[in-house]
Amino acid sequence: MQMFKGIYAPIPTPFGANGEIYWSGLKRNISWWSKSPLAGLVVAGTNGEAALLDEDEKIRLFSYTREQLPAACKVVAGTGCESARATTRLNREAAKSGCDAVLVLNPSYYKGNLNDTALFNYYSHIAEASPLPVILYNMPRNTALNLSSTLVCRLAELPNIVGIKDSSGNIVQIEEIVKGTEQSFSVFAGSTSFLLPALLMGAVGGTLALANILPEQCVRIQTLFTAGQLDEAKELQLNLLEINSAVTSRWGVAGLKAAMDLIGLFGGNPRLPLQPLTEAEKEELKTILSKTVQ
Amino acid sequence: MQMFKGIYAPIPTPFGANGEIYWSGLKRNISWWSKSPLAGLVVAGTNGEAALLDEDEKIRLFSYTREQLPAACKVVAGTGCESARATTRLNREAAKSGCDAVLVLNPSYYKGNLNDTALFNYYSHIAEASPLPVILYNMPRNTALNLSSTLVCRLAELPNIVGIKDSSGNIVQIEEIVKGTEQSFSVFAGSTSFLLPALLMGAVGGTLALANILPEQCVRIQTLFTAGQLDEAKELQLNLLEINSAVTSRWGVAGLKAAMDLIGLFGGNPRLPLQPLTEAEKEELKTILSKTVQ
Amino acid sequence: MQMFKGIYAPIPTPFGANGEIYWSGLKRNISWWSKSPLAGLVVAGTNGEAALLDEDEKIRLFSYTREQLPAACKVVAGTGCESARATTRLNREAAKSGCDAVLVLNPSYYKGNLNDTALFNYYSHIAEASPLPVILYNMPRNTALNLSSTLVCRLAELPNIVGIKDSSGNIVQIEEIVKGTEQSFSVFAGSTSFLLPALLMGAVGGTLALANILPEQCVRIQTLFTAGQLDEAKELQLNLLEINSAVTSRWGVAGLKAAMDLIGLFGGNPRLPLQPLTEAEKEELKTILSKTVQ
Amino acid sequence: MQMFKGIYAPIPTPFGANGEIYWSGLKRNISWWSKSPLAGLVVAGTNGEAALLDEDEKIRLFSYTREQLPAACKVVAGTGCESARATTRLNREAAKSGCDAVLVLNPSYYKGNLNDTALFNYYSHIAEASPLPVILYNMPRNTALNLSSTLVCRLAELPNIVGIKDSSGNIVQIEEIVKGTEQSFSVFAGSTSFLLPALLMGAVGGTLALANILPEQCVRIQTLFTAGQLDEAKELQLNLLEINSAVTSRWGVAGLKAAMDLIGLFGGNPRLPLQPLTEAEKEELKTILSKTVQ
Repeated sequence: MQMFKGIYAPIPTPFGANGEIYWSGLKRNISWWSKSPLAGLVVAGTNGEAALLDEDEKIRLFSYTREQLPAACKVVAGTGCESARATTRLNREAAKSGCDAVLVLNPSYYKGNLNDTALFNYYSHIAEASPLPVILYNMPRNTALNLSSTLVCRLAELPNIVGIKDSSGNIVQIEEIVKGTEQSFSVFAGSTSFLLPALLMGAVGGTLALANILPEQCVRIQTLFTAGQLDEAKELQLNLLEINSAVTSRWGVAGLKAAMDLIGLFGGNPRLPLQPLTEAEKEELKTILSKTVQ
Repeated sequence: MQMFKGIYAPIPTPFGANGEIYWSGLKRNISWWSKSPLAGLVVAGTNGEAALLDEDEKIRLFSYTREQLPAACKVVAGTGCESARATTRLNREAAKSGCDAVLVLNPSYYKGNLNDTALFNYYSHIAEASPLPVILYNMPRNTALNLSSTLVCRLAELPNIVGIKDSSGNIVQIEEIVKGTEQSFSVFAGSTSFLLPALLMGAVGGTLALANILPEQCVRIQTLFTAGQLDEAKELQLNLLEINSAVTSRWGVAGLKAAMDLIGLFGGNPRLPLQPLTEAEKEELKTILSKTVQ
Repeated sequence: MQMFKGIYAPIPTPFGANGEIYWSGLKRNISWWSKSPLAGLVVAGTNGEAALLDEDEKIRLFSYTREQLPAACKVVAGTGCESARATTRLNREAAKSGCDAVLVLNPSYYKGNLNDTALFNYYSHIAEASPLPVILYNMPRNTALNLSSTLVCRLAELPNIVGIKDSSGNIVQIEEIVKGTEQSFSVFAGSTSFLLPALLMGAVGGTLALANILPEQCVRIQTLFTAGQLDEAKELQLNLLEINSAVTSRWGVAGLKAAMDLIGLFGGNPRLPLQPLTEAEKEELKTILSKTVQ
Repeated sequence: MQMFKGIYAPIPTPFGANGEIYWSGLKRNISWWSKSPLAGLVVAGTNGEAALLDEDEKIRLFSYTREQLPAACKVVAGTGCESARATTRLNREAAKSGCDAVLVLNPSYYKGNLNDTALFNYYSHIAEASPLPVILYNMPRNTALNLSSTLVCRLAELPNIVGIKDSSGNIVQIEEIVKGTEQSFSVFAGSTSFLLPALLMGAVGGTLALANILPEQCVRIQTLFTAGQLDEAKELQLNLLEINSAVTSRWGVAGLKAAMDLIGLFGGNPRLPLQPLTEAEKEELKTILSKTVQ
């Protein structure tokens, strides 16, 4: 019934020694993900270091990823910029590239003047001008601005807004969104750490950093939930807490990239101002990872 | 296996027109709750206006409630003060009154110096001196100080600390506590708004403002969950969101007391600085309540 | 023109080895302060561990301090509790003890329902019932609730509210209060770290933790300012930044007490949950102090 | 002794009806500012809607402003982006355009991983690669990330970092920076609301939204301060509080642009997601402005 559901990986953008996008590393990664049970990939999101990419880099990432990936696997383009004009430009490019939807992070720099009215006007404008369906993206840990459930429910009534990735971790907010929107509106958990409770309360999937390195396990949480095997689902989710924290709240993108290197994908270093993990941190990450997938 | 589980109501303290505790109103309320399926009552918690009660009033509330209530129904005494000495005094009085456990809110005024080490020392001291089992109480919306899952897991290893009421609403934190403690440690959801996801992830009950006015419905969420009727449990929980918000985050104790008046219990006015609801707010509350229990 | 001005020390409450108030230590301290140029003492404030004192202890502190101190030196009683009734009880006791004013910290536990209207009603009620002039006390670092300049300016119009101790450190807020109140309303800086800029913008004094150990230097900042010796005032204030931070934001009451021990006053240990400084911290404090007063 | 001092206006970027930069409006504005006593202009800062400008627009603004303005009046280019590579690109373009310095806002999106070490590494890298002197820019109200005084003092030791615009309004932090840096390091107040106290504590100027519309008054605060006329300086600053709040914290860039329209400059509308003032808000602004400049 929903246009989008299931588990997505918000993929990192690999950089070579020269600091430029390392396309053959990306190709290798995409090939691996394409054999996983993931429903799709998100390109140029938070884990893709969108904030550190130039506009033309994002555009090339959209088309390159779409080309490399089988059509059955969806590509969602991260397009949210601070200005409406830049966001709309990217939305159009994402459509040209054949992407399936756009994930639009809210602007946040002028937060003192971005009340619900301003944000409603912004997203209305964006949705109207977007050739692709729009998925809202709430990431208050980075933006320091939360999309309230009241706002999200109003936005969900607009024809071209089809879902939300909520990374707030606020389960009550997720419930309020589920309660206040049509069933066709797709609610995605923004982190594995609250995937299972979100599914229980009505989410239809997740967009999960951890799905980059452990796609089977992430998908298995949803499969177990759907099959009514709650105890197994719960046990699996609890087992993933520590590694999930390592590649999200604790070490962020740098941690995720280091973990990719550890499992044979191409991770590499993030761009400045992000810092790669120290050797000691990499050792600790290795220990956490080996405990998880033993 | 856990010493405490099920649904508890953190009862309001009724005041008469003279501002003093209105004992016969309390008696009436307790009589009603005693016929409900609640596992127990919490006295002198946040909803009991503990911060606005004198020490001797709290002591009388402990013994009065215990006397009025059948032994099968547990009484948990809210005893957390800013100082260790005041908290321990109340813990001893609660024991003398025959209460079953103490619920100990963390001190928070000197938050700049209350790091995990200081809080660990504090609770160790409290637990050692308490004749009754100690339940931790995390209420960051009021204290502006969160008890981290790391701290809680360390405290859970102390012999006399048997559980936590976590009102943070942070489901990931609840998962981390479940994951990092023995099964005998009781995790309680602190609000109906996240009761069901908390139960799914390992909580064994809830201490819920809403249970004061809708005890059957609150208990029914847990019953449905235990019976595996997830869809019904989810639907019920979503239906309770609005009334729960009205008597907690939105209008607080004053809202809860007004709702009690509406259903025939004795609610009355809160103490200053809390303000009773305006007539318009009472009308709105009435509408919300009638939609819920129709 | 203002009823209160100049530099006040918010004195710590000394405790003996048995954890009870150590009256002869307090006597010795008061004797020393009484020979300083301080305008007065504040009893049972944040540095007096008010939150950790029993009601009867506060009452005895009010009368004991008033008795020990020459009449020329004012005594301001810290009386703010969470409930209006407890605050008013203390206000009356402070009056009986011969104190000169009461310093009333705002309630903060039920912060979600303490909007400007509720706080205005609360303080109106308190002021009307208080036999002594009321000084507002804004301490958002501890209460997590700021008294807005709009609220303060409205409260300043009430006949019995004569000033504010603002510990927010928000210099713009202090300007707005100065701008929006009569000149007879006394604005006090709540910390030495912003005493000089506050004086420049219209404050008439300070209530300063540092004044407990360095009263001459604190008073000298105001004297230099009044004499127009701004460069010297500025240099002195900058020199006091590090020691001030040590006995306030960094180590709090425990740091202040340790510093008192170092200069020959009776400091001793704070009450639980506050922790005394470690030996290493005391050594560091000693170094900071010796750099300051060389 | 400092390379930069005095009052700067962080100029808005005017947009025409088609949403593009309205160059002739900008020309008119610059001509007006060039006749004022301002020390210089800041281009593409927060008030210039930098976050809503494309890279090539910023570059054209740098050169256009530099060309239009007499050489005696400095031009500081706002260049801070989230990525080091984009910031360095702009720094080089600013140098080519003949600008005098760059104002570098810290990255903030990945705030969870931007501790002092990461920020030190970032700014070291930026400073080394910048052909122009670097001025730090701390704007925590927008970035939700504060540059600590400890970090700023360490950065001030790098040869190419010559000052800071601190918009935090934290006067203690400004004191700590003054205390911990050489006198050649220029500290600028980031808002008129704390200009005078900042000057008293060692700041050498201000970069002030209000200076766009009231340059004489802003400069006069500093002139009065330097001349030792503190009472007049204080009175002037207090009189500017309300209009300053209107064009900064209250209505932001939209308020500033509306005020420019009111005094005969070209203000116009901000870009989406910013919203122009409503007619009622414009009326209120008009009243505030007329009270200020009567």
